[in-house]
Amino acid sequence: MKILVLNCGSSSIKYQLFEMDNRSVIAKGGVEKLGMKGSFLKHVRTDGQVVIFEGEILDHKAGIEYILGILTSEKHGCLKKLEEIDAVGHRVVHGGERFNKSALLTEEILNEVEKCIDLAPLHNPPNLKGIQAMEELIPGIPQVGVFDTAFHQTMEPKAYMYGIPYSLYQKYGIRRYGFHGTSHRYVTKRVCDLLGVDYNTQKIISCHLGNGASVAAVKNGKSVDTSMGLTPVEGLVMGTRCGDLDVGVVTYIMEKEELGIKTANTLFNKHSGMLGLTGISSDMREIEAAESQGNARARLALDIYDYRIKKYIGSYIAAIGGLDILVFTGGIGENGDLTRKGVCSDMEFLGIKLDDSKNNGFRKEGVISTDDSRVKVVVVPTDEELMIALDTEEIVRNSSK
Amino acid sequence: MKILVLNCGSSSIKYQLFEMDNRSVIAKGGVEKLGMKGSFLKHVRTDGQVVIFEGEILDHKAGIEYILGILTSEKHGCLKKLEEIDAVGHRVVHGGERFNKSALLTEEILNEVEKCIDLAPLHNPPNLKGIQAMEELIPGIPQVGVFDTAFHQTMEPKAYMYGIPYSLYQKYGIRRYGFHGTSHRYVTKRVCDLLGVDYNTQKIISCHLGNGASVAAVKNGKSVDTSMGLTPVEGLVMGTRCGDLDVGVVTYIMEKEELGIKTANTLFNKHSGMLGLTGISSDMREIEAAESQGNARARLALDIYDYRIKKYIGSYIAAIGGLDILVFTGGIGENGDLTRKGVCSDMEFLGIKLDDSKNNGFRKEGVISTDDSRVKVVVVPTDEELMIALDTEEIVRNSSK
Repeated sequence: MKILVLNCGSSSIKYQLFEMDNRSVIAKGGVEKLGMKGSFLKHVRTDGQVVIFEGEILDHKAGIEYILGILTSEKHGCLKKLEEIDAVGHRVVHGGERFNKSALLTEEILNEVEKCIDLAPLHNPPNLKGIQAMEELIPGIPQVGVFDTAFHQTMEPKAYMYGIPYSLYQKYGIRRYGFHGTSHRYVTKRVCDLLGVDYNTQKIISCHLGNGASVAAVKNGKSVDTSMGLTPVEGLVMGTRCGDLDVGVVTYIMEKEELGIKTANTLFNKHSGMLGLTGISSDMREIEAAESQGNARARLALDIYDYRIKKYIGSYIAAIGGLDILVFTGGIGENGDLTRKGVCSDMEFLGIKLDDSKNNGFRKEGVISTDDSRVKVVVVPTDEELMIALDTEEIVRNSSK
Repeated sequence: MKILVLNCGSSSIKYQLFEMDNRSVIAKGGVEKLGMKGSFLKHVRTDGQVVIFEGEILDHKAGIEYILGILTSEKHGCLKKLEEIDAVGHRVVHGGERFNKSALLTEEILNEVEKCIDLAPLHNPPNLKGIQAMEELIPGIPQVGVFDTAFHQTMEPKAYMYGIPYSLYQKYGIRRYGFHGTSHRYVTKRVCDLLGVDYNTQKIISCHLGNGASVAAVKNGKSVDTSMGLTPVEGLVMGTRCGDLDVGVVTYIMEKEELGIKTANTLFNKHSGMLGLTGISSDMREIEAAESQGNARARLALDIYDYRIKKYIGSYIAAIGGLDILVFTGGIGENGDLTRKGVCSDMEFLGIKLDDSKNNGFRKEGVISTDDSRVKVVVVPTDEELMIALDTEEIVRNSSK
């Protein structure tokens, strides 16, 4: 079975074509700068060769058409005809309270997804455009939606309700939903396979540290709490997002700087976080480089970054009553040995004992805690696309029975 | 030495007159509805008798004049003449970064306090009015300012900096300051006296749970972190304040409900928290009563209340590397055995073992953990006024040397 996984953003489309028989990626790539000047398609062929096609790609339909054309091209493709694609799996950002798992995208289900647009006005519309374009280009092909929020739907009300008037929850569905669910689900399952333990009996804290970043507490296979909220701006300090912030600071800045709602959102989502603190970059490698040159604000930002993660870990240990496994994933979680070291420092009293000799320079899958560490600290490279492909395969197989 | 302690709010003035020789309160009371119709003065005499005087009390000066009149009245007072008052101690809400301890209020210092008005536009002005009125009524009397924020000035930048552009910290001083500092300082010191341990070697988490509520992490006698921020709306879910909230929720609600900045602040400060969640009351006793009648939203609100405190405790345990003492104070901390039980449930793995038979109905000072609990859980009724009086006494004695 061949499954195409699509992640449609407002100005980009990422794709991976999976051969599910051996779970391998046979082609992948992405369209960038969609609808802008200088748009291009970057395609990685089955043999690993990278080819770039420039050209005006105006919308999602044109982008996907371009992708399908490359996939079936004689020179660069890997398919003889489009019919070889058995199904398409889509990343969908917000599934609201409606979706607690991935779903076959029937017309009825798509109407439900549309109802979630209000909760993620920037993210859900391009997801939907990709789904519609695909239906137009290969009519009738089975499509599956995999929601970033779905994994966290097991949270209890005490974890997802905010301290605001209850009517606002009833009226707008304002509550914590959390994101990165596909990643947290993948790495927490994967780490149990790796360690040979039963997913349904473990207390796991998963730190997805990328440009966006979130922590999730997973107990007995269920998400119990997570740091992102209604929107992805809550929680950890991220590349350009502020994370947790006093409500009074939001209104204080809006008043003093005379900012409207949109500008304020831009400030807190695009100009804050590590970029805002350092004034240098949102990229951890550049910040670490500056710090090693003695830049004090880079040092400060890194301290804040680690400290926030450390506090979330403590918080979630209290929430789930202990900890068996601590997982790091995402670009910084997978590659940032300094971050992992900072987060795990002085945590031995909680059973977390990092092995510096293992952690140092560690950039693959594996355990980085000492042999006698009560909590296993593990790096697991995330693979949201594989998770989407697996969900899609399962749902398509079951629906065709 | 006799010290008058004043807490001047925008529409109220609370006072306590201390005889420092035996640290006793010889009279106390308060003006309520200041500047409004129906304003009155409630005075508790040395013999405990309560007298109420109605009358139009228009401003802080009139209120304090009224209080001084009662204190020296033949029938209800305890002073022969005003000169018997040796000094006045004032609660001042915001001391910014300027004040890390209490200070003698010279003209120079008062100018500094005025500079903090921008950080607490609702609280500092009435504090200052009280100070000015006092100077006019008893010219030259030594006055001391005791700041709610001062105790937390030992926080490190990693704990007090938000993930927003650094320039906003430089320009406006936007950072975490924390509040309830006088209370956290009092109860963490007091609990060490009570247990006979050295304040400067203990890891303490202090939960001040009143209508406003905050948690503080105190390590070796210094505040390391606290849940309130630039303003008192951050952190725990409180009587009417929302506590921690996704920045995206703030802007989402402002947009959907078309709220301006002031209305939004009112919503999150006055109509949120336990009141907003339950729709019943901000008063814990009324909420617990409703819950015992089977009210589901009251149950939900109580669960959220406890869960947030529990998570802060976990978070601060990670921040200070362990825990020796957990203190409860404030109206709910001192009287709310159900809250204390909820917060401490399932925390044995962290060394917190509540003794239900002790906790049940416990409403005084003392230990409520089991004898074998590694962490001592203690109830300590707070006494901010005594702390203000003690600071005032010390500063006045030292300044007159």
